[in-house]
Amino acid sequence: MKKLLIANRGEIVNRVMRACRDLGIKPVTIYSDADKNMGYLKEADEAYNIGPANPVKSYLNIEAIINAVKTSGADAVHPGYGFLSENAAFAKAVAEAGATWVGPPPAILKAIDSKCFCRKIASDAGVPVVPGTIDIIQDVAEIYQFASECGYPIVLKLDKGGGGKGIELVKEEAQAKEAFERLSRIGLMAFKSSECYIEKEIQNPRHIEIQFLTDGKGGCVCLGERECSIQRRYQKIIEESPSPVVSEEDRKELFDYTTKLALAMDYHGAGTMEFLRSEDGNFYFMEVNARLQVEHPVTEYLTNVDIVKQQLLIASGQPLDFVQKDIEFKGHAIEARVYAEDPVSFIPSPGTITSLEFPHMEAQYLRIDHAIEAGGTVPPYYDPLLAKVISWGINRTDAIKNLKLGLMGFQIGGIKTTIPANLLIVSSREFAEGSLDTGFIEKLYAKEGATGSPGKPLWPNM
Amino acid sequence: MKKLLIANRGEIVNRVMRACRDLGIKPVTIYSDADKNMGYLKEADEAYNIGPANPVKSYLNIEAIINAVKTSGADAVHPGYGFLSENAAFAKAVAEAGATWVGPPPAILKAIDSKCFCRKIASDAGVPVVPGTIDIIQDVAEIYQFASECGYPIVLKLDKGGGGKGIELVKEEAQAKEAFERLSRIGLMAFKSSECYIEKEIQNPRHIEIQFLTDGKGGCVCLGERECSIQRRYQKIIEESPSPVVSEEDRKELFDYTTKLALAMDYHGAGTMEFLRSEDGNFYFMEVNARLQVEHPVTEYLTNVDIVKQQLLIASGQPLDFVQKDIEFKGHAIEARVYAEDPVSFIPSPGTITSLEFPHMEAQYLRIDHAIEAGGTVPPYYDPLLAKVISWGINRTDAIKNLKLGLMGFQIGGIKTTIPANLLIVSSREFAEGSLDTGFIEKLYAKEGATGSPGKPLWPNM
Repeated sequence: MKKLLIANRGEIVNRVMRACRDLGIKPVTIYSDADKNMGYLKEADEAYNIGPANPVKSYLNIEAIINAVKTSGADAVHPGYGFLSENAAFAKAVAEAGATWVGPPPAILKAIDSKCFCRKIASDAGVPVVPGTIDIIQDVAEIYQFASECGYPIVLKLDKGGGGKGIELVKEEAQAKEAFERLSRIGLMAFKSSECYIEKEIQNPRHIEIQFLTDGKGGCVCLGERECSIQRRYQKIIEESPSPVVSEEDRKELFDYTTKLALAMDYHGAGTMEFLRSEDGNFYFMEVNARLQVEHPVTEYLTNVDIVKQQLLIASGQPLDFVQKDIEFKGHAIEARVYAEDPVSFIPSPGTITSLEFPHMEAQYLRIDHAIEAGGTVPPYYDPLLAKVISWGINRTDAIKNLKLGLMGFQIGGIKTTIPANLLIVSSREFAEGSLDTGFIEKLYAKEGATGSPGKPLWPNM
Repeated sequence: MKKLLIANRGEIVNRVMRACRDLGIKPVTIYSDADKNMGYLKEADEAYNIGPANPVKSYLNIEAIINAVKTSGADAVHPGYGFLSENAAFAKAVAEAGATWVGPPPAILKAIDSKCFCRKIASDAGVPVVPGTIDIIQDVAEIYQFASECGYPIVLKLDKGGGGKGIELVKEEAQAKEAFERLSRIGLMAFKSSECYIEKEIQNPRHIEIQFLTDGKGGCVCLGERECSIQRRYQKIIEESPSPVVSEEDRKELFDYTTKLALAMDYHGAGTMEFLRSEDGNFYFMEVNARLQVEHPVTEYLTNVDIVKQQLLIASGQPLDFVQKDIEFKGHAIEARVYAEDPVSFIPSPGTITSLEFPHMEAQYLRIDHAIEAGGTVPPYYDPLLAKVISWGINRTDAIKNLKLGLMGFQIGGIKTTIPANLLIVSSREFAEGSLDTGFIEKLYAKEGATGSPGKPLWPNM
């Protein structure tokens, strides 16, 4: 691998470039018209325009990106996260263009795109899945049948759904028919497939995921868990490792599940197995993420394993040069995602960054992955992630302290950011106590009173 | 009163102008060279340059301000807070220029400048003062004598000290002589008087103050208490009313003390009696503030009394047109002072405001007193207060909620602000529980780990 094209935008481009430089690989970048002034384009060896701002015509445009691969002569492609990162057709096109795909082979991407396929693999391997159907359901009668045995509430999910879409909660029989029909329509429109299945609703779940590396040569190493329960609009905003609730025994079990699943899937590369943890402490496999995750730095802080470098080495055909017992987990790391969004409504706040200061903290306590600069713009077309602020501490208390100090050290002008929301979350009693679940923000904001108070004061405002 | 000169700068100018407009009085403003572009100058009927940026040569320059009074033909002067607001010589000069001084008469300002004088008045009126000497001490032997009766720790205070200066904590006999001598030196340098007295140290005190109005015609009305225990560098940053610990009985007692003190001092105008509350729940009179206070809006929110308007009416010779039983206290109000300071170190952060957005909240829940605008500058010469954010709620919980929402609604670029610190404070468990004392920030920040953590993570930072 001599020249690698990074088929993405934003902070992850900087992250992948760093790994390229470490390995002596030349990085090639691409950009849409909206991103033509991004600072990292000047850092790359080459940069190619792949189309207009609209992501469908640029970062999701397989043909345009493959053209850039061919023109640049790149011999590898790293897809980052989001966009085409788990797209089997793109992976196939990369291979057909004679370049190495940094990720699992297209056939695996295609297979695991089906949640039912993954549930079946898990079930066969003895890994618990959320109770429900393993197969696609054919009609609403199957819902009634399932509920008569297991009761409501249940969740209907599209087999090919994703990104928080394709999920319908059914609280009682009267809602079943309409939910089934609505889901089928959404499936056909958004995912070209109306196939769906049933899960029991897990109430107040925690989202726990295991980062792993497999080299396709029998080596599989788990790099610990990440607790990602704090989400808004089904998107993570705070992640940490270790999880405050995963015991040594749980971890062993989760590693065992992950290894079994990865081998059964014939997985290859870096990946993440996502689990739900129910309030009674049981873990259920949910899905596999066949890409680098936004939150990978917390794992890197703890293990000193450079996950992106490992992706490149595995894609180059090298076996892992370490085994599970070589992995040490040291201290605690927390990531806060800083978005260009209103911190109360979480509505995007694109625009120009009129001023910018970063926190001055020692590198051993704070890592900031970003691609922003004063005078730069946050375009309205893409995910408005500004920076990932990752803190490290010898224990959770210290990691929280350092994260707060890091967040307080920013000064960002011209756009609203989620920094106040991040501070509110990590300063809350619930976060300090580690009482996290996927409804955390909704509950915190209800408590914080995102709506006005009753009553009316006497003082007429200025 | 037809034309009033506001002898101050910043947000308080806007506040006083509002009261002037309500009463049909023409406001006149003054400005130093550093403030020549302040937006309120255009709002005023007239604006006079009174000298260079250095406050000694402008806002503290009695001659220059009196010239502006004469040139403008103003028939009254409102001094705001800080600067010359409690300066007897200035009040006298205003009177000599034929204008009305909005505040207590010069003789009272001069008398109450002595803390021992106030302690004596209080003591004679049966109002408890912090245990200590009522008279100035003459030598260190008196310290030994006092301590032999009451024990250490004790506090030596300059009779004319203020603004957090002129206070020496003496923990043991060995420190007494040096502290006494150091205080005498500081007194001569900063306050032209080395006179000092002794107080027992009140540990973990709360700072509770009573706002009152006296018309000099026998009318004296108390407008409730304000809890101002949250301070950094002896300066308040969060204030609220009512105090979480003041009972109806306490309030009655504090009103009684305040009325006795105001009448004994022959006070005239709006003022504030400051008390310390010890951990065991006793109140001790500390000092009188003979001016409008920064935190007056929390009281206005609760009582619907426009304190500035009342100041102008009293100065015009009108009697109060309400009595104590007319005053209703409704709900809860909290003020957060937003400073242009680093939120971790509280070091001033002057500069240009490159971008600015205010929270969009209904006036009944949020009041913002300020004098900032996008493109404006925060000069390094003065107190870097940017805005006072005052929330109202039907109860304390709702007021906290609304304050958080208000603080999260700001977007200020180009300078660091204390908004993240304000959020950290009002989100803390201690604040929610109302466990406040004057060491609050010091303790919170120690807990928050303003220093780095021990240990060293494995991941080498980017």
